[in-house]
Amino acid sequence: MTMSDDPTKPVFDAAFRDKLAELFAWRRDVRRFRPDPVDPALLDDLLRQASLAPSVGFSQPWRFVLVEDPDRREAICQNFETENARALAAYSGKRAEQYARLKLSGLREAPVHLAAFAEMDPERGHGVGRRTMPETVPYSVVTAVYTFWLAARAAELGVGWVSILDPDAAARTLAVPEDWRLVAYLCVGYPAETHSDPELERYGWESRVAVEDCIYRR
Amino acid sequence: MTMSDDPTKPVFDAAFRDKLAELFAWRRDVRRFRPDPVDPALLDDLLRQASLAPSVGFSQPWRFVLVEDPDRREAICQNFETENARALAAYSGKRAEQYARLKLSGLREAPVHLAAFAEMDPERGHGVGRRTMPETVPYSVVTAVYTFWLAARAAELGVGWVSILDPDAAARTLAVPEDWRLVAYLCVGYPAETHSDPELERYGWESRVAVEDCIYRR
Repeated sequence: MTMSDDPTKPVFDAAFRDKLAELFAWRRDVRRFRPDPVDPALLDDLLRQASLAPSVGFSQPWRFVLVEDPDRREAICQNFETENARALAAYSGKRAEQYARLKLSGLREAPVHLAAFAEMDPERGHGVGRRTMPETVPYSVVTAVYTFWLAARAAELGVGWVSILDPDAAARTLAVPEDWRLVAYLCVGYPAETHSDPELERYGWESRVAVEDCIYRR
Repeated sequence: MTMSDDPTKPVFDAAFRDKLAELFAWRRDVRRFRPDPVDPALLDDLLRQASLAPSVGFSQPWRFVLVEDPDRREAICQNFETENARALAAYSGKRAEQYARLKLSGLREAPVHLAAFAEMDPERGHGVGRRTMPETVPYSVVTAVYTFWLAARAAELGVGWVSILDPDAAARTLAVPEDWRLVAYLCVGYPAETHSDPELERYGWESRVAVEDCIYRR
């Protein structure tokens, strides 16, 4: 069991690493979707891959909710529209004009709505690793969401993470247990456009920071 | 700027997708490191890739701290040992015996210590997407950490995420600004072993959940 190496271990060569770097560079937050449906078997495979994400104490606290009911989807769209209007009201002048022009979700077009929740006090894992940093429970769900996102992009799908929502109202809309916290609400579908630059950069909202400016030594 | 497609866009074929799925499956939380040093140019490249992660409002709130000072590293090791002893004290009977046998960090062996912080109220992004869910700021840092982790694993490096720490004490040890929150403290180096199963599963602490048990429909 503690053998120093596994003869079946994969080799990741330079060509794979280059392609992986391209995947990171071309993964986008997508808000413009084609209406084409997504094969349920593909979705299942992506969720299986997402479940390979790391989790604190191997607690696997991710709970994925496929939102299919039209009334619930409509309630989520209205939740977004309400919160987006509130967000707009907090800006003024040129920023407000710019904000009003941004497309910040593809909720009405995306064929798949996928909500990712964290079970905040999971039995699994027996508490390992989360005594001083309980936020590692939702962080574990974030790694699962991002695994899903990367695998989806490699399959030509687009994912958009919508956080302009009242998360408690969304949880009520989806009738999930009280101890689940919404981590991410995802729009999933085939993208109408493909870009290497983030939409918020393309439309002049924000620019990219030099990597060096985010690295410190102590 | 809104052209429907970019002629330079990459193609991700079935062979790449299979290899990516293998990367997800063989990425481990590593606690057993060889002492071999890590090329600083490789570290720089991995941090550059990490900076391609998604972030709320394109706020790019990740702040990476390479911990090189021996006294600071020793203080972090002691922080872990104190908190690990406290965690052990919360278990009893067989679980306590089992916990005491787990190796939960490679802090003393890993050649590289990398702390990832979130700047909690970043100017960048101008607040987009985090009015109702401010936790998306540290979540953005989690996606950067996980990007680093995946890129590192593809380069044969191992990463171990240590969360058995007093995060505020760690922040003081590293003398970072008040508004930075510790998201992850990472051990980085070449792994002494390669496995497809999590250490906590291998040593009988926790087992894998069936994917189907984490998928719900509403």
